[in-house]
Amino acid sequence: MTEQKATNITRHAGAITRTDRSQLLGQRGCLVWLTGLSGSGKSTIAFELERLLIERGRAAYVLDGDNIRHGLNSNLGFSDEDRAENIRRITEVAALFVDAGLITITAFISPFRADRDQARAKLAGGEFVEVWVSTSLEVCEQRDPKGLYKKARAGEIADFTGIDSPYEPPSNPELTIANEQGPPKEAAQQILNLLEQRGYLNAGSA
Amino acid sequence: MTEQKATNITRHAGAITRTDRSQLLGQRGCLVWLTGLSGSGKSTIAFELERLLIERGRAAYVLDGDNIRHGLNSNLGFSDEDRAENIRRITEVAALFVDAGLITITAFISPFRADRDQARAKLAGGEFVEVWVSTSLEVCEQRDPKGLYKKARAGEIADFTGIDSPYEPPSNPELTIANEQGPPKEAAQQILNLLEQRGYLNAGSA
Repeated sequence: MTEQKATNITRHAGAITRTDRSQLLGQRGCLVWLTGLSGSGKSTIAFELERLLIERGRAAYVLDGDNIRHGLNSNLGFSDEDRAENIRRITEVAALFVDAGLITITAFISPFRADRDQARAKLAGGEFVEVWVSTSLEVCEQRDPKGLYKKARAGEIADFTGIDSPYEPPSNPELTIANEQGPPKEAAQQILNLLEQRGYLNAGSA
Repeated sequence: MTEQKATNITRHAGAITRTDRSQLLGQRGCLVWLTGLSGSGKSTIAFELERLLIERGRAAYVLDGDNIRHGLNSNLGFSDEDRAENIRRITEVAALFVDAGLITITAFISPFRADRDQARAKLAGGEFVEVWVSTSLEVCEQRDPKGLYKKARAGEIADFTGIDSPYEPPSNPELTIANEQGPPKEAAQQILNLLEQRGYLNAGSA
């Protein structure tokens, strides 16, 4: 948990409620948190899901390692401390997006259970949907779309998840996607179905 | 400018365009950046504007010193370095909200011209609307809603904007609001009118 440094501040409650936003957008904000190894297909699935949602008239947005690392977290590296701060900031930003009513999709390796549980805890209303993209290390390493596994094996990248840094699988994810061969569209459709079942795709009452 | 620490990353272009989001939400994302002294009325105007927008069926969201300081920026204090990082992170998050298509409203003192100009530069499409809430120091200090000026005068808070830290007024804001006596509703309505004139309240074509 992070220390609260600034003390001379007070929370400001806007006049607009979560229900107002929900009715305006015709959906309930939630956070779809994709986790899995590099090359498992997280980003591809995330953007496919976003496309399916927007085609259905739902407001969705993807936060992923690439666009966040170039902006908000451009001053963070890959040390343990920086990795923790990376996930902490992502969680806080995602929580703001959910508060704004958006179906928010994050696609980060997020290898540590404690970090993901912290994100789950941050979404006080239970709007956290953890999706494990469980593609095996063997398959990810064969794909190696960015050549990162090769570099990690050659010792050019240190602390690479799956090689010399651990990946802790979710113990109780809302959904596990076996994405070994599967096209991302099917994986995205599975998540969409779950969101529909859980009532996130309409304003509902809760 | 911040150093880009992580290098083994590439930008991921989603299939969804700014135009898709604009058509979905019936508006164009933009950033209304309120700046002014503590007690000038920024947050009150921001939440009033958000209410007016949502009543018109527009998707809007306020980022303000209070809700950001409790979350994303809870690990920052008020040193020069931390203040700069505070505004940098806010700018990056606001840019993500604008990219998601929302009418985004920030309410921070943001006393330094260079910081605000950096935010303006970040919004590459010119979707930056700088609003100077120009309430005088005298009036702000008389109001002193949180008792902060009293503490600053007593030396209990250091580097307080307007007392022992400078406020640099915008040289060319999109709007200046004289909020000396005025009810926040009128101020919010002025901003709304400007947003309408500039075409942000419908999907448009640009």
